Amino acid sequence: MDNNKERTTIVLFSGELDKAIAAFIIANGAAAYDHDVTIFFTFWGLNTLRKDEIVNTQKGILEKAFGWMMPRGANKLGLSKMNFAGMGPQMIKHVMKKHNALSLPQLIELAQEQGVKLVACTMTMDLLGLQQEELLDGLEYAGVAAYLGDASHAKVNLFI
Amino acid sequence: MDNNKERTTIVLFSGELDKAIAAFIIANGAAAYDHDVTIFFTFWGLNTLRKDEIVNTQKGILEKAFGWMMPRGANKLGLSKMNFAGMGPQMIKHVMKKHNALSLPQLIELAQEQGVKLVACTMTMDLLGLQQEELLDGLEYAGVAAYLGDASHAKVNLFI
Amino acid sequence: MDNNKERTTIVLFSGELDKAIAAFIIANGAAAYDHDVTIFFTFWGLNTLRKDEIVNTQKGILEKAFGWMMPRGANKLGLSKMNFAGMGPQMIKHVMKKHNALSLPQLIELAQEQGVKLVACTMTMDLLGLQQEELLDGLEYAGVAAYLGDASHAKVNLFI
Repeated sequence: MDNNKERTTIVLFSGELDKAIAAFIIANGAAAYDHDVTIFFTFWGLNTLRKDEIVNTQKGILEKAFGWMMPRGANKLGLSKMNFAGMGPQMIKHVMKKHNALSLPQLIELAQEQGVKLVACTMTMDLLGLQQEELLDGLEYAGVAAYLGDASHAKVNLFI
Repeated sequence: MDNNKERTTIVLFSGELDKAIAAFIIANGAAAYDHDVTIFFTFWGLNTLRKDEIVNTQKGILEKAFGWMMPRGANKLGLSKMNFAGMGPQMIKHVMKKHNALSLPQLIELAQEQGVKLVACTMTMDLLGLQQEELLDGLEYAGVAAYLGDASHAKVNLFI
Repeated sequence: MDNNKERTTIVLFSGELDKAIAAFIIANGAAAYDHDVTIFFTFWGLNTLRKDEIVNTQKGILEKAFGWMMPRGANKLGLSKMNFAGMGPQMIKHVMKKHNALSLPQLIELAQEQGVKLVACTMTMDLLGLQQEELLDGLEYAGVAAYLGDASHAKVNLFI
């Protein structure tokens, strides 16, 4: 980490498509301006990072239940408004494609290419029973202390 | 923009009455303390800025659909909690009036008088098919780069 | 307040269990790192601070209605996602207990022990008809100006 660089951190707590898109657009924008950028995924935000296939894992019943109830990855997220039982996300994806905007999986890929640090909150992973094999490759794993370490050196700190 | 002034930025992503009121109370407070203040309206937050009358525009079907489904301006927003099919916002408006608190349209007017910069996110306007004629007068139009330019000079940066 | 200390502020606007837990985990983490920490409770966030017993107060009908409709304290909050008519919060509380994570009432107690400043927004208290006797002991009472005073000296400022 370069001490002369501006820094930006985002806590992605929410598990909705529109909020995840906003988080990644801001993160990619900041990375393009040469900021050191961290997104810290916690609670429902972790669902953004799930692989879309089913991964075989050893889990208790409750952890299995969470796994089935929560959306499996960036393509399965709903909207925070106007979800209309899943029609809303299709509409949004349609207009984004029409305007040649990057989709959420593409935004995530771009963030990784630009060196945005994607950190999965280990405490929430424990609580919800999510395991590293179920999440995308190339993530870091840490707790709130690591987040605060980054945030206290950043000017732009957002909770989404 | 004065380099010696404190700066505050708010991203208003949410399209609910209570969150918009919170955003404008913080923005007006910061402006009263002589901060340079920017509110960047994106996604559902843009509905706060819509004129309440119907404006004739040329649009595709999907953009018309978004236009009809989304609330038309500050007086039509719902609540994030206890909306009760529109009764909640009436209750909140009633108690605000009773306590002589400014209504959301008055808070917006005050912000404009105090020089708070109200910026509509052009990328979201494209996606949702919102046009400048449909939004209030006196706005600026910009993208995430302009937001980050302001935010990286500010200490208080909130995402609402 | 020590001028050499790092500072962190959180506006807790939301009244849901998961968001309140996130706010207190960040606040307690920052306090453990010796930051001066303020949580400013406004709108639905105030419900986190309500005592769980019924407190006799003189109120108008509308204020009484708000009082009955809103959750009475940290143990009664719902979830922002997967609430399932109250089953979701039970599941989360169950897994937190199983992993020996602190419950929300314990997180609040720890925050008070660590000197986190818990400030109730007096303007919202007026609007919703909440009175000091109905809230936990050891709080401060202030408005948006006090919040901005703290936030403009802090690097980490979050709106939850």
